[in-house]
Amino acid sequence: MQTNYQEILNHIYDIVKAGDNLGYVASYIPELATVDPEKFGVTLTTIDEQVYSVGDYQERFSIQSIAKVLSLSLAYKLLGVHLWDRLGVEPSGNPFNSLVQLEYDLGIPRNPFINAGAIVICDVLYTELEHPYEDLLAYIRHVSDCPNLTYNSIIANSEKSVGYRNIAVTNFLKSFGNIENEAEEVLEFYFHLCSIQMSCEELSRTFLFLANHGQKINGEEILNIGQAKRINAIMQTCGFYDEAGDFAYKVGLPGKSGVGGGIAAVLPGAYSIALWSPRLNEKGNSYRGVKFLEFFTTKTGHSIF
Amino acid sequence: MQTNYQEILNHIYDIVKAGDNLGYVASYIPELATVDPEKFGVTLTTIDEQVYSVGDYQERFSIQSIAKVLSLSLAYKLLGVHLWDRLGVEPSGNPFNSLVQLEYDLGIPRNPFINAGAIVICDVLYTELEHPYEDLLAYIRHVSDCPNLTYNSIIANSEKSVGYRNIAVTNFLKSFGNIENEAEEVLEFYFHLCSIQMSCEELSRTFLFLANHGQKINGEEILNIGQAKRINAIMQTCGFYDEAGDFAYKVGLPGKSGVGGGIAAVLPGAYSIALWSPRLNEKGNSYRGVKFLEFFTTKTGHSIF
Amino acid sequence: MQTNYQEILNHIYDIVKAGDNLGYVASYIPELATVDPEKFGVTLTTIDEQVYSVGDYQERFSIQSIAKVLSLSLAYKLLGVHLWDRLGVEPSGNPFNSLVQLEYDLGIPRNPFINAGAIVICDVLYTELEHPYEDLLAYIRHVSDCPNLTYNSIIANSEKSVGYRNIAVTNFLKSFGNIENEAEEVLEFYFHLCSIQMSCEELSRTFLFLANHGQKINGEEILNIGQAKRINAIMQTCGFYDEAGDFAYKVGLPGKSGVGGGIAAVLPGAYSIALWSPRLNEKGNSYRGVKFLEFFTTKTGHSIF
Amino acid sequence: MQTNYQEILNHIYDIVKAGDNLGYVASYIPELATVDPEKFGVTLTTIDEQVYSVGDYQERFSIQSIAKVLSLSLAYKLLGVHLWDRLGVEPSGNPFNSLVQLEYDLGIPRNPFINAGAIVICDVLYTELEHPYEDLLAYIRHVSDCPNLTYNSIIANSEKSVGYRNIAVTNFLKSFGNIENEAEEVLEFYFHLCSIQMSCEELSRTFLFLANHGQKINGEEILNIGQAKRINAIMQTCGFYDEAGDFAYKVGLPGKSGVGGGIAAVLPGAYSIALWSPRLNEKGNSYRGVKFLEFFTTKTGHSIF
Repeated sequence: MQTNYQEILNHIYDIVKAGDNLGYVASYIPELATVDPEKFGVTLTTIDEQVYSVGDYQERFSIQSIAKVLSLSLAYKLLGVHLWDRLGVEPSGNPFNSLVQLEYDLGIPRNPFINAGAIVICDVLYTELEHPYEDLLAYIRHVSDCPNLTYNSIIANSEKSVGYRNIAVTNFLKSFGNIENEAEEVLEFYFHLCSIQMSCEELSRTFLFLANHGQKINGEEILNIGQAKRINAIMQTCGFYDEAGDFAYKVGLPGKSGVGGGIAAVLPGAYSIALWSPRLNEKGNSYRGVKFLEFFTTKTGHSIF
Repeated sequence: MQTNYQEILNHIYDIVKAGDNLGYVASYIPELATVDPEKFGVTLTTIDEQVYSVGDYQERFSIQSIAKVLSLSLAYKLLGVHLWDRLGVEPSGNPFNSLVQLEYDLGIPRNPFINAGAIVICDVLYTELEHPYEDLLAYIRHVSDCPNLTYNSIIANSEKSVGYRNIAVTNFLKSFGNIENEAEEVLEFYFHLCSIQMSCEELSRTFLFLANHGQKINGEEILNIGQAKRINAIMQTCGFYDEAGDFAYKVGLPGKSGVGGGIAAVLPGAYSIALWSPRLNEKGNSYRGVKFLEFFTTKTGHSIF
Repeated sequence: MQTNYQEILNHIYDIVKAGDNLGYVASYIPELATVDPEKFGVTLTTIDEQVYSVGDYQERFSIQSIAKVLSLSLAYKLLGVHLWDRLGVEPSGNPFNSLVQLEYDLGIPRNPFINAGAIVICDVLYTELEHPYEDLLAYIRHVSDCPNLTYNSIIANSEKSVGYRNIAVTNFLKSFGNIENEAEEVLEFYFHLCSIQMSCEELSRTFLFLANHGQKINGEEILNIGQAKRINAIMQTCGFYDEAGDFAYKVGLPGKSGVGGGIAAVLPGAYSIALWSPRLNEKGNSYRGVKFLEFFTTKTGHSIF
Repeated sequence: MQTNYQEILNHIYDIVKAGDNLGYVASYIPELATVDPEKFGVTLTTIDEQVYSVGDYQERFSIQSIAKVLSLSLAYKLLGVHLWDRLGVEPSGNPFNSLVQLEYDLGIPRNPFINAGAIVICDVLYTELEHPYEDLLAYIRHVSDCPNLTYNSIIANSEKSVGYRNIAVTNFLKSFGNIENEAEEVLEFYFHLCSIQMSCEELSRTFLFLANHGQKINGEEILNIGQAKRINAIMQTCGFYDEAGDFAYKVGLPGKSGVGGGIAAVLPGAYSIALWSPRLNEKGNSYRGVKFLEFFTTKTGHSIF
């Protein structure tokens, strides 16, 4: 694959940058609302360790739901297939914070990326880890090779102060017996998970193991090959809320988005790509991020399909 | 990719054949119920035209819903992106014949593979084609290179005689204005589409264009590269009813199943594979077919993820 | 009860007539759409056979869904409590023609007044009656003491020609095994039932048996006292689509409305009242009819509550 | 109405007592679970102040949801029709603690008797009352003429300790902006409301104003005549969870049940009746209570229908 990635990145970056920048910046907490909506960065890292970047790729942003992939990978590593007793791997067909399906499915979240599922994952980690906060952070630092990553307590507390829907979800899960720990503690942990900040460069590097059969560039195994494949499959079918099908259709890469305007995606066997542009389309995914990826996979001619 | 496909096929075939054969054979019409539940065949065709088969791969079976991929590809070819004014590309999160989501979404089916969506596709073709029955059949014969394929009127009429749910769906769609032709005529056409019979060998050959960027082996373009990619994406997210996520997770290939026990799947850029084993798991997909594919992609180490 | 009904009727009629006449006339078939929207009539008949009327009370209109009370009373008479094996008596919480609840409840309609329930009742009658059309008509003529009532085939056929939703409902019911006869025949019968026309005077007289413990004025028993009470209870909780609670709250009389702008209601032990005004409020009930009844029960100080 | 109520009460009491006593005692908190399941008491109070009782009518029990009628009446008294900006008066068609409809209706509870609606009423009172706990208790003491009624903090705290579903409901409401105060405070208040204990004798007396056009026996107005009528209408359509229609059909009295096995019902213009028997049928209403009332209204020949 002798693609000239830098050239393509630059080219598409210019096109997307020149186009409109529609949508809104997430504003339910001040920490997200104050971000400059024109920020726009991209980094692509190949599995042979080439790094290509453009724009604001060195500035950290709140990765939010993208962090759910990391908590999932750790829980999966710890519990193996038993993890799926607590939640499913099917797309939900409903918005990410819907309680409807949860009621029909008696408290079993459809997948690990809707809020209910991600909260169950946090409950699993809260039980399994000896020091949940420290151990999760250590894991993320290890995967990302960024020893200075940390939780942003201001963001976490802001989320908490307006997180009525998530409190509802957590207690609803607990009413079905699918939360083992105190609802409040699990939620606090969940909000801290989502508060992590990375740059595109760091995020791209972090996700590389999913493009590389579960291994970090240095060959260290984070997940085994089957587990990595499965997480990619879940990202593919569930990673973009109820835009998952549309994203598969337009972009064709497994990935995960966050309400902070970030997206991480991988082409298994080839590369990991991270993008950041804060304005969100009506489905809650980065407007420019989705557009960039659509152009990018079309231009390179490579996607999983 | 120097994989020894024949050896792997044989090996996995023996394992799966030796294991249990659970589930039920679709029995709502006599024509499906009388099939020998022990039939089991597989054919894999690579894009460089190598063909590998095992078991009952030459016997024709009712491909049922697998035919929806073919009608979709023709409608997409004819209407292009305007097709998506009539239906979506998102997974449904509900059984294939549910009316619930259709009511909430005001008559716009979630995707082309749930019954409602496939019926809308048939309505599109019924409007667009001059001689719907002949033209659709000609198209399928052309894609498959099987000039002797034909509708099975006995199966089609049997389906019709018990197809209350589909009559309900079609009239429900029409009440929302999303069926242009007479409900009865569209449904008749739909049942004929699903009545087509192929062998694994024929089915594998038919689906090869989706593994080959939209082109038949002889280089003839059925769909352009973007369209082929998009149909693969839809198969990936919606091809296995509400087992789509689980199939992605276990198998990792875009594909489509039918109630007759058939499955067709592709690894883009590599091969098309067709399987047939009549017993269905509780999600309505071939029990042995899914199992075979899971072992197969694990063994070969190749999937889209 | 020495209420001067005529005076109150006249008084409220003048007030309501002087007020606005909002809403729309049902227009999905021409026969309903061409009605003069300013028509407005009321008749009240007491159980001691006093009759009070005002306005256009002698002109016949399409009673539509009000007829469902009559078919229900006949089916109940014929099957007794076994009728409730086929449908429930609970309010639906959904629009009258919703398929959602029907799917969750596996084909058992919530009550006899949503379309699904009324169609099941027609299926019951179609099985039980030797000559369904003649026998049902004879029954209605008998209850109403109007030997010249008849089906309006023009209206029935118009309904049929656009009745996609009802075809959907009927076939959906049949897919669950809750329709015994041919869907098309049951539906034809249902549309004829709804096509009956009465004047307010006739309709008021017809419903009198429900105010009179199941007996006609001449003492003849149509239903026993327990059955009459139960039909009133069902009208109370389910008679006004998803405005049932609001109607109970504002008016406080068991009753049934029709899309032709008619309403029939009873105060058990006292009177039956019928109203007609074609414009419908957003819930599908006669705008002026509901308003009149609200003023009327407030003015007389009598309701069931 | 010269009915010999005492004789009828005794007669039916004996019959029901001799029959089976099916169902379960609510056991989610110890305070309810330890009640003797054979307890059974009834009191009927007429609007001319005759009191008839049988069985364990002097023993206090946890009235639970029956108290929602009292909080509703106070909120209605305070806000008048503006109350209905915050919640509806339609039956829900779903279990009392469902979140599904709440999501579809964007946080507006269907009626004041499902948990979501009762919690909104508590929020209203928490805002409107200067000293919520004291003022609500004073109101209930006043209506009931029982100055020694009080909250049972043990029950309230037990409810709180397992009330995950209600925490979910309250925070879900708050996420839609339909809770003004702190979720936790509103819920604490709600659990205290439900913790009140009364005997059948006290409960029957308390509800008498609803049978008496809003006035206590001494002529004092609690609600005006229109408001009393409306609360009766809401009890009629929504008072028995998803057994409301069945209760209307079998019993024909507006009423409200509680998970402690109590029922209060009224025949407007005649009497108020309170019953207690702890075993609940599958819909969550007192098994013997419903049976008793069915026999009772049949025997007396009086109901609202």
